[in-house]
Amino acid sequence: MDFPFSRIKGGVGAPKGFLTSAVSCGIKNPAVERLDLALVYSETPCASAGTFTTNRVKAAPVKVSQAHLRKDDLRAIIANSGNANACTGVQGIHDANAMCDAVAKPLGLKRNEIGVCSTGVIGLPMPMMRIEPKYGELVSKLNAKNGADVAAAIITSDTRPKEVAISFDLGGHRVRIGGCVKGAGMISPSMATMLCFITTDANLPSDSLRKSVLECVENSFNRITIDGDMSTNDTVLVLANGASEMPSIRRGSSLCKQFRAALQWVMLELAKAVVRDGERVTKFVTVDVKGARTYLDAKKVAEAVCKSALVKSSWNGGDPNWGRILHAVGYSRARIREELVDIHIGGKAACLGGLQTTTPMDELRAVVAEPEFNIVISLNQGDADYTMYSSDLSPEYIDFNRSEYAYWKQARKDGLV
Amino acid sequence: MDFPFSRIKGGVGAPKGFLTSAVSCGIKNPAVERLDLALVYSETPCASAGTFTTNRVKAAPVKVSQAHLRKDDLRAIIANSGNANACTGVQGIHDANAMCDAVAKPLGLKRNEIGVCSTGVIGLPMPMMRIEPKYGELVSKLNAKNGADVAAAIITSDTRPKEVAISFDLGGHRVRIGGCVKGAGMISPSMATMLCFITTDANLPSDSLRKSVLECVENSFNRITIDGDMSTNDTVLVLANGASEMPSIRRGSSLCKQFRAALQWVMLELAKAVVRDGERVTKFVTVDVKGARTYLDAKKVAEAVCKSALVKSSWNGGDPNWGRILHAVGYSRARIREELVDIHIGGKAACLGGLQTTTPMDELRAVVAEPEFNIVISLNQGDADYTMYSSDLSPEYIDFNRSEYAYWKQARKDGLV
Repeated sequence: MDFPFSRIKGGVGAPKGFLTSAVSCGIKNPAVERLDLALVYSETPCASAGTFTTNRVKAAPVKVSQAHLRKDDLRAIIANSGNANACTGVQGIHDANAMCDAVAKPLGLKRNEIGVCSTGVIGLPMPMMRIEPKYGELVSKLNAKNGADVAAAIITSDTRPKEVAISFDLGGHRVRIGGCVKGAGMISPSMATMLCFITTDANLPSDSLRKSVLECVENSFNRITIDGDMSTNDTVLVLANGASEMPSIRRGSSLCKQFRAALQWVMLELAKAVVRDGERVTKFVTVDVKGARTYLDAKKVAEAVCKSALVKSSWNGGDPNWGRILHAVGYSRARIREELVDIHIGGKAACLGGLQTTTPMDELRAVVAEPEFNIVISLNQGDADYTMYSSDLSPEYIDFNRSEYAYWKQARKDGLV
Repeated sequence: MDFPFSRIKGGVGAPKGFLTSAVSCGIKNPAVERLDLALVYSETPCASAGTFTTNRVKAAPVKVSQAHLRKDDLRAIIANSGNANACTGVQGIHDANAMCDAVAKPLGLKRNEIGVCSTGVIGLPMPMMRIEPKYGELVSKLNAKNGADVAAAIITSDTRPKEVAISFDLGGHRVRIGGCVKGAGMISPSMATMLCFITTDANLPSDSLRKSVLECVENSFNRITIDGDMSTNDTVLVLANGASEMPSIRRGSSLCKQFRAALQWVMLELAKAVVRDGERVTKFVTVDVKGARTYLDAKKVAEAVCKSALVKSSWNGGDPNWGRILHAVGYSRARIREELVDIHIGGKAACLGGLQTTTPMDELRAVVAEPEFNIVISLNQGDADYTMYSSDLSPEYIDFNRSEYAYWKQARKDGLV
């Protein structure tokens, strides 16, 4: 970011005029006390924007939030973890609508002003009987603290809540952007898999906000991958309430560009946090593809390398295996020439012109032994670049994802299946 | 196959007029005695055909074999395991040519009549100094046994040699087809990753053989996946020497169709054997996609499901997780409608119209607990079908693929890097 900003405490509650709350319903397991239902609310009307999974199988809350955004600007978000409300048919739509209605009424909003998000197991009905008794508490607990309750309530297999907030000067006014995210599994580009909520007290029209959000998502969440699986529930929702009392930013102005740069920084920070906290991840790897003929070629190469099970296994093992990287470059369907490809690992040449270099293997191994490192793949064919953020694939990831039977057993106990 | 045939003993050595041999060079590790250099030779001229990896990074032997096939029909194949001779530049081409020359001379063949294949680690030069002393022994050991020596010499991380041979009546003449294959890792469609050699004493023109091979590969090796990684070395070579003394099969005749059906059966049998012996595989899963709008849509769905890390993890855990299957169907980019999708696991309905069924979970779990089972995904949108053969993904696969450092250390010891 080329203009000054400061990190501040908190997440979605940090910008002015946003209230948050979260309660414990026991959605996944009634025996466990943990926050699993959250509410974000703006005291004043907002401009709003969202991006959603491109999976053709969309969870009910995705369909409902998309419909609401088409009709109205959102002013509140209700979100739960523990059940994705995906592959749940008409009942799922009914349940997602009911969640919106339940908070719209006490907040004095229309149903269309509520966004709804769910994350968790796919294919089991929502245990609404454990959510319904908690709406009152959810609304009454709304507070002007920093939003950490929301960040905590939306996580699933994440090991920690992930949030960030910044403040910066925008045309002489102090403005804040805050966000939180949940990730961990089913993380793949094209709408990266997760829930992300971002709030700001900047003042800008909805169409400017929408354009900024699309561009910033493309350069952040769409550039990460953990397991290559695209979720049914991916959602990014952004609310801008203008509570900083700045005048509205004009479209295309330099202030608009500054705001976009700040939003980009926040999204990229959250996107990287998702990879770092990926399921059983031990390595955070930045893959820079350079010198491709086209943007699309660069992207294809980055995605092939970042999704290769063999490449990711070698990262897990601390093996600077440039041969596997080059083999993935080769099957990416991008136009590449083997004899032109250079691969640098942590700034050290591992492969030049498609061939092994004389860089001592111990030096390369020292780079890949670190928890974070960088790989530059130079195709030497043109000027197009692309960067992706990826992780290793660990035996523990597979172990962790072997069975969701416990979810089903609970749904059975609940009489839902 | 709709005409009678019998399985017979052996593999590439089973058809008449083919001689085979294999020797131990210590290519991967000079301290270990194991067959790693093989030769297949036809006593008479052959029709020949091949298919190769579509990876843009092609190993030197792939480039050399492709060039030879364009110029001439092959009559012999030399193949090694322990080093892929991939990403080895001009030296790699030189080494692959040298391997051809070394056997062409004593066999009285032109270099162009030799196919050459390598499999093993990528990016390290071939230890030719350990191969060169063995050419004499390789040629002198040629024998008319069944070819098991070749099947044994080409395997790498495979747990067992894989070969099959059949004999059948073709227009009143007894004809044989034999084949062997190596697979295990880097297995993904579009030219499935492996080496496969097939011999037959049927008599048919090269153009007919080529057409048959292309079609049969599309319906066998291109339909399997283990880890989704496409190798740099994939090769299928087929030699037909006519030694059964039958008259040449006419193009498009019913005999030609019978031959193709037999070849198809042999290739599919070998392809399935590759999946069953995939690296640390515990499940063999047949995925039938039915009722797609187009062949391509059916294929996209099958590939998305068969390559999903999350789906494969659930198979490893014996979890009949239809929700994850449906989420992969959704991101396949095929035109599907969630509410029309049915999923049957081992013949039992797990999901109908996109929703969970009342089939007892214990029944579905019993199916997925088996080492082999079948999943039918009915899209209910058209008439196009596609079948793929896949495996689970195990924690042990990742463990197994964490490091190839031992290869590098040996190459270092050899003074090659």
